[in-house]
Amino acid sequence: MQKYAQILDLVRERNPLIHQITNYVTVNDCANMTICFGAAPVMSHAPEDVVDMIKIAGALVLNIGTLDEKQIEGMLAAANEAKKCGIPIVLDPVGAGATLYRTQTAERFMNEFPLAVVKGNAGEIGTLAGVSAMVRGVDSGNISGEPKEIARSLAKEYGCTVVISGAEDIISDGKRIAGVLNGMPIMGKISGTGCMASAVCGACAAVSNPMDGCITAMAALGIAGEEAAKTAKGPGSFKPAFFDAVASLTSEQFIKSARISEYQ
Amino acid sequence: MQKYAQILDLVRERNPLIHQITNYVTVNDCANMTICFGAAPVMSHAPEDVVDMIKIAGALVLNIGTLDEKQIEGMLAAANEAKKCGIPIVLDPVGAGATLYRTQTAERFMNEFPLAVVKGNAGEIGTLAGVSAMVRGVDSGNISGEPKEIARSLAKEYGCTVVISGAEDIISDGKRIAGVLNGMPIMGKISGTGCMASAVCGACAAVSNPMDGCITAMAALGIAGEEAAKTAKGPGSFKPAFFDAVASLTSEQFIKSARISEYQ
Amino acid sequence: MQKYAQILDLVRERNPLIHQITNYVTVNDCANMTICFGAAPVMSHAPEDVVDMIKIAGALVLNIGTLDEKQIEGMLAAANEAKKCGIPIVLDPVGAGATLYRTQTAERFMNEFPLAVVKGNAGEIGTLAGVSAMVRGVDSGNISGEPKEIARSLAKEYGCTVVISGAEDIISDGKRIAGVLNGMPIMGKISGTGCMASAVCGACAAVSNPMDGCITAMAALGIAGEEAAKTAKGPGSFKPAFFDAVASLTSEQFIKSARISEYQ
Repeated sequence: MQKYAQILDLVRERNPLIHQITNYVTVNDCANMTICFGAAPVMSHAPEDVVDMIKIAGALVLNIGTLDEKQIEGMLAAANEAKKCGIPIVLDPVGAGATLYRTQTAERFMNEFPLAVVKGNAGEIGTLAGVSAMVRGVDSGNISGEPKEIARSLAKEYGCTVVISGAEDIISDGKRIAGVLNGMPIMGKISGTGCMASAVCGACAAVSNPMDGCITAMAALGIAGEEAAKTAKGPGSFKPAFFDAVASLTSEQFIKSARISEYQ
Repeated sequence: MQKYAQILDLVRERNPLIHQITNYVTVNDCANMTICFGAAPVMSHAPEDVVDMIKIAGALVLNIGTLDEKQIEGMLAAANEAKKCGIPIVLDPVGAGATLYRTQTAERFMNEFPLAVVKGNAGEIGTLAGVSAMVRGVDSGNISGEPKEIARSLAKEYGCTVVISGAEDIISDGKRIAGVLNGMPIMGKISGTGCMASAVCGACAAVSNPMDGCITAMAALGIAGEEAAKTAKGPGSFKPAFFDAVASLTSEQFIKSARISEYQ
Repeated sequence: MQKYAQILDLVRERNPLIHQITNYVTVNDCANMTICFGAAPVMSHAPEDVVDMIKIAGALVLNIGTLDEKQIEGMLAAANEAKKCGIPIVLDPVGAGATLYRTQTAERFMNEFPLAVVKGNAGEIGTLAGVSAMVRGVDSGNISGEPKEIARSLAKEYGCTVVISGAEDIISDGKRIAGVLNGMPIMGKISGTGCMASAVCGACAAVSNPMDGCITAMAALGIAGEEAAKTAKGPGSFKPAFFDAVASLTSEQFIKSARISEYQ
């Protein structure tokens, strides 16, 4: 647990700038979560703007939750510059599997760029891995196949870290497979938990290898979610409590509460 | 009251996907409110994306709060597909009457599509009904004429259900006229209450006839607003309490608290 | 203090419509803060829509936090109409100095329009004043030079009021220089405090001269931040408490708590 807790501390020490091109639904939550986690958010999507911004960023997070042609242009410009600068890119393929447009856009970024992280729910990742998946809107459905194997083989194929969020989050870099059991069902009752997790994966990938970074990110948010659920009276009061819990999460608390398994 | 309470339960049972093309001001509130109400939100506006998404949706909600040409393109594509699939369309003509662009866009959708619901404040609906109305920005002004008659005649003209929000919400499908007295003034002190109500009208219209669905939606939010107002210290704390109250609203509580009148 | 407290009361009495073309990250916070402060927000960016809207507005707030070409078009159309109507324009040059695109766009508006207020952090204003400044993303960095002199000379050059936000906010209209010491560090731990302050500067400039208006705006939000910090458990719970504190701020409390200095 020590090494993951150190990543948490390192984010806070270095306060990396996390450049996010994301959906307009949960963008405010992503900005605030990035701050609470100890990093600095910047949202910028115009092709004219992104290149300068990437030069000072520690990671780039691409989230296709409310995709359109203009946004893809900005994402391409930012990803090209990130590739050139060697900055880690995190892709959240929101709704891949629900529409062809989302699936194809996610695949395009996976094929054209050296992604550090692809993070989605079982339906989205299953779709991208080519296994039969059921996706309804932006919510996950069932997949056929074993998540651990799907994550590992997709990670191996693309040379990236794959995160499948769920009751147990599965993280694989193609060699290692880890599971994170932290979290609470109420986290699925607010919009944006997945988006915020992607932002935080970006923050961790800015200071660490993506595999350990994503394990840290998923465990940290899960622990904070457990803490916030203790006092929440519903999804409305859960949200501010969740932000508070992330902001006050210490490395000691992380070590005590993280439920991380390494498989095989 | 029983039949309205059943609609509430039915939304939670079926968890319909509510496709929303809405403004970027209150979109996060609409997403969270949709979840709290028991439905599933999806926001998607690109013409390339909306057709696939409509195919799996239970209702389409169009909100013109921050309209532009690109958004209209997406709305048209989505509405065409919704019409083809027979999916109910809810229109929230935000700011109709304040600018010609908004008025004409609202009228365009009313004329070109078989809307299930048009929901606005007195100024917006008054404008669309052609009665003298005063609209300032996105806030309602005064109208000349009797809201019940305006709602009924507009509903009759367009073959849809019309909702006029206010201290007493008026709902008419051209034949019946209902009034809902639930709600609190503090609901007008946060941005987005009207937008959230439209989202929830969509959720109810996905499982019911639009008239009964809108009565249920307006009463449910009003009851939750009354509940939340009990503990709120201001608009800031009202908002999370409002989400909590919607999420925890039971059909029993609905039956006990709903103040619904059928006129004539 | 009396005259500033009167501006606060005047906003509530007149409830001016504040037309905002702003970023999609903090737009909801800006809308809610505008309401809590006693004014009425309207967000509208389409060139087809803004001209009609400006005609009924009391101020125009331009915030370049998530700039793109389409948005600039809308900002230009709105600013042209505001100029024609004599409506005060507030510019928040978010991220000027971080990218050339933002710097040049801010400069364009400063050169082409008679701005009432330019409000930014030290890095942004330092960049626009041509002093060596360090800006990272949308966070402020260090500047070389004395903020009071930078504010005064920039204000003089452009004939506007300049606000530099910070531990002590500096406000100058080219002649007077004022400082506001109200506020708490936790205000920097949520996204959007600066954007909300610009919205509120717009609300005050709609009913007062810009210099006194901005002093009122910065002091009022600072006092509310101090109040909210008393009960907040972190950035998440600070935010609703901050809105509550602004909504309940009285002119008496303002007079008692404002820490405003006039320099020289």
